[in-house]
Amino acid sequence: MESFSKSKAHGKLLSLAARPYDLTRSCGLRADGRLSRYICRSELLNLYYATQRVDSTVLATLQELADELRLVEQFKEMRRGAVLNRIIGYPSENRQVLHTACRDVFADPAEPVATAAAKREIDKLQAFLRDLEKGRIVNEQGRPFDTMIQVGIGGSDLGPRSVFEALKYYGISGRKVFFLSNVDPDDCAQVLGEIDLGTTLVNIVSKSGTTLETLTNEKFIRGALKRAGLDPVRHCISVTGKNSPMDDTSRYLRSFYMYGYVGGRYSTTSMVGGVILGFYLGFSQLKEFLKGASTVDREAENKDILKNVPLLLALLGIWNRNFLGYPTLAVLPYNQPLHRFPAHLQQCDMESNGKSVDRYGNMVDYRTGPIVWGEPGTNGQHAFYQSLHQGTEIVPVEFIGFMESQNDMDMEVEGSTSQQKLLANLYGQIVAMAVGRSSDEPNKSFPGNRPSSLLFAKKLTPMVMGALLAVYEAKIVFQGFAWNINSFDQEGVELGKVLARQSLEELVAHIGDGEEELYQHLLAYLSKNPA
Amino acid sequence: MESFSKSKAHGKLLSLAARPYDLTRSCGLRADGRLSRYICRSELLNLYYATQRVDSTVLATLQELADELRLVEQFKEMRRGAVLNRIIGYPSENRQVLHTACRDVFADPAEPVATAAAKREIDKLQAFLRDLEKGRIVNEQGRPFDTMIQVGIGGSDLGPRSVFEALKYYGISGRKVFFLSNVDPDDCAQVLGEIDLGTTLVNIVSKSGTTLETLTNEKFIRGALKRAGLDPVRHCISVTGKNSPMDDTSRYLRSFYMYGYVGGRYSTTSMVGGVILGFYLGFSQLKEFLKGASTVDREAENKDILKNVPLLLALLGIWNRNFLGYPTLAVLPYNQPLHRFPAHLQQCDMESNGKSVDRYGNMVDYRTGPIVWGEPGTNGQHAFYQSLHQGTEIVPVEFIGFMESQNDMDMEVEGSTSQQKLLANLYGQIVAMAVGRSSDEPNKSFPGNRPSSLLFAKKLTPMVMGALLAVYEAKIVFQGFAWNINSFDQEGVELGKVLARQSLEELVAHIGDGEEELYQHLLAYLSKNPA
Repeated sequence: MESFSKSKAHGKLLSLAARPYDLTRSCGLRADGRLSRYICRSELLNLYYATQRVDSTVLATLQELADELRLVEQFKEMRRGAVLNRIIGYPSENRQVLHTACRDVFADPAEPVATAAAKREIDKLQAFLRDLEKGRIVNEQGRPFDTMIQVGIGGSDLGPRSVFEALKYYGISGRKVFFLSNVDPDDCAQVLGEIDLGTTLVNIVSKSGTTLETLTNEKFIRGALKRAGLDPVRHCISVTGKNSPMDDTSRYLRSFYMYGYVGGRYSTTSMVGGVILGFYLGFSQLKEFLKGASTVDREAENKDILKNVPLLLALLGIWNRNFLGYPTLAVLPYNQPLHRFPAHLQQCDMESNGKSVDRYGNMVDYRTGPIVWGEPGTNGQHAFYQSLHQGTEIVPVEFIGFMESQNDMDMEVEGSTSQQKLLANLYGQIVAMAVGRSSDEPNKSFPGNRPSSLLFAKKLTPMVMGALLAVYEAKIVFQGFAWNINSFDQEGVELGKVLARQSLEELVAHIGDGEEELYQHLLAYLSKNPA
Repeated sequence: MESFSKSKAHGKLLSLAARPYDLTRSCGLRADGRLSRYICRSELLNLYYATQRVDSTVLATLQELADELRLVEQFKEMRRGAVLNRIIGYPSENRQVLHTACRDVFADPAEPVATAAAKREIDKLQAFLRDLEKGRIVNEQGRPFDTMIQVGIGGSDLGPRSVFEALKYYGISGRKVFFLSNVDPDDCAQVLGEIDLGTTLVNIVSKSGTTLETLTNEKFIRGALKRAGLDPVRHCISVTGKNSPMDDTSRYLRSFYMYGYVGGRYSTTSMVGGVILGFYLGFSQLKEFLKGASTVDREAENKDILKNVPLLLALLGIWNRNFLGYPTLAVLPYNQPLHRFPAHLQQCDMESNGKSVDRYGNMVDYRTGPIVWGEPGTNGQHAFYQSLHQGTEIVPVEFIGFMESQNDMDMEVEGSTSQQKLLANLYGQIVAMAVGRSSDEPNKSFPGNRPSSLLFAKKLTPMVMGALLAVYEAKIVFQGFAWNINSFDQEGVELGKVLARQSLEELVAHIGDGEEELYQHLLAYLSKNPA
């Protein structure tokens, strides 16, 4: 395995980074036809990158980097079942990484066994959704279920929730969906206050069946069901690992399976997202969503970086992170339905690539995953864009935009529609960041050269959403391959879990103490007891 | 005016930063009684900072920095009406900065004129709320208004929205509140789909009365009102500058005023937040909220940094940013109702302090405002905490916690309540980040020395929320004073606005073009025409 920092291309890129392309020079954006040449096309969305600080030499060297580090080969191996979730020479999860199999179902399967397992769950889900629709599964009074609460946290929450928000417009009329994640009684109470438990299905999602937050919320809701005179077994379903404590027909109406080779943060296209999205969108739109993701997976096997959207996005990110030295990445969708998508990417990216040891357990001597953050435009323009334009910290941006809005309620005000205004702002920001503006008034001058890309599609449909999700999943995986890290474990969250358990016992014993005493006692106690 | 980087304390801090306090050393957390000594107490909340990489020498030098740069004096001058929103020697806004006057109403006013103006608006609001309550203001059918939509963007949205979310539990029964900000037809359509326009008041908020996004959404809603056979003048109120186009009784049922000396991102305690929060919480709880903020404003005038929560928070932030070199700051509330508060702080902080020129128009030779981001715990633990613990980018954290939850629906599961679990996680994370853990397995080892603070209060009441908001406002202002920048303008958003206007005309003319042609044409056009 080639090491990132010892690769030949790495050395070349380091020298090239001393003089990155100057977007502020005269005709900087229009030179060499870059506006038409720097477009990476794919079936469902395009990547526009003329406003990155790259030229043809940098791009050719990024291609060398991709080839030298075998990025596409590794991606192919992943899809075909290679054991990539491991640290070689140390105890680790030692697992395959097969989230792509969840959507290979409607294509030629790259890995037949996992794809067949995924297919079985999808078929079970289709039958379950049909039974709901046909009135074969109903509540105590024979009424249909119209609401689903998903109880889960982390990967069982952010991905499905952000996709649900993105596709809210496409829901089956009358169906409602809620998510419960945090162990916060205020959160739980609020959701229960908004629904009719009698017509509600509760979908508990936990691979191990032992996630503390999820079990706590489950008990809370089971209690509420019982108090309302309802039978929890009629209302609760689960998505969990086969043979986990939650794979239990005496307690759940149905159990759908998730598999060890699908990591939580990559599980949106598994039953973790499938059940709730299928309930809300209906089976045929769920299929569209999965097909969109599958299309991107196949496209991601193209070795030509200029024809591979997620790979190019990954490499541009590496250029900004490791060679231009920028510590963060902002993902800014010009589309309100995607308002939680940056939070999902924050999870998927930072949990995957926020690592300091490589796949052999060596400390890395380069930066890995950036801090990922973002909010939808144009809201952000009135918030943090000041800093993006004139701050001392340069933030590379990945914009996301669409030609059309999802619904047709748009209206013209002063000769343009809201969608047109949204797009006008998007283009305006891209140019302002890239080109800047000099002024005799220092407070009104803009340095420019703040790099961005634009992911653009016709309209945010279920299929395009699947594609967008898969683009980012593949991008993150490609970056992990390049940095030679294991993007599929999360050892960094374990210490906190252990300490939380120790902390809880001690806290319960000292809960009567004052605030300061409790703090002092717990911090002293926890720091004394190496977990 | 002393310059930040030329101050004596700056030089000392630079040397001290070569060996910051080691939290991972044996008894690192318990040494010198720091767990009991490093608590900054105030009336409504405490700041715990034993897990910052500071010792008594660093703290003494931060005190010197505060004194040398006259931070508290400048804060006092601000509250008393000094013209601080300016760039000396260049055209600029040249305004006072008097958001604190909005809550001086219930205290001894520091600046009587602005306080009297704020008082007049609060009295108007009280009368308006009483008229709503007594049925003197009703809809076309004589029914009471039970819903309010706030239409605004940036400062007119994020602050009020995050406080509303934080205090949702305390609302008047039956009252509903919605916010509309983005120019996104999907957003607007969704809100209108959820409400009964007949019993809805629409509160349009724009200081200038000319904000494009807000006017667009307003027209959209006025259209919907008319189509529903309703009279917009009966349903629309405004919060705007005196004599702005929106200060018009022929178009609005009421107009409440906001003043030029209250910046958008600091306007939550003005009528910008006051009207909607008063409608939802009732007048007496709104008063509590303002009193909480006022309490902090007075405490912020204490020159002893160890007794001044916002000042100490500001200085610890400067230590992490300028001396330890960390580019971002995570704000992580262990409390679901505060889920949008980090987004508000992201705005307030980054728009205030994301600047590169000082108050004399000179380029700064030091870093200013960090990238601020965050999500509530424990959700974040299952998302990006991997990177916080083991990533290559060190992220200082400001945790926020409460001893009690807002409501009493909490229940015990396995011997502890959800609130106790939430707190146990909070303490566990603080220790894990600070102390770390060594291991023979490199993927399971934690470097520690990742600094954090904890803002803690008994319960998130309206008064505590006011205090929390004011702590952050004052912190941001103190940091701006230290960096010698103007934290009150936002010239960095102007170029984007100008380009968006140019872009819109051109886009409408070319909307029939294909996606690629449109992109190419607009980017070429906008980069050719220096705004």
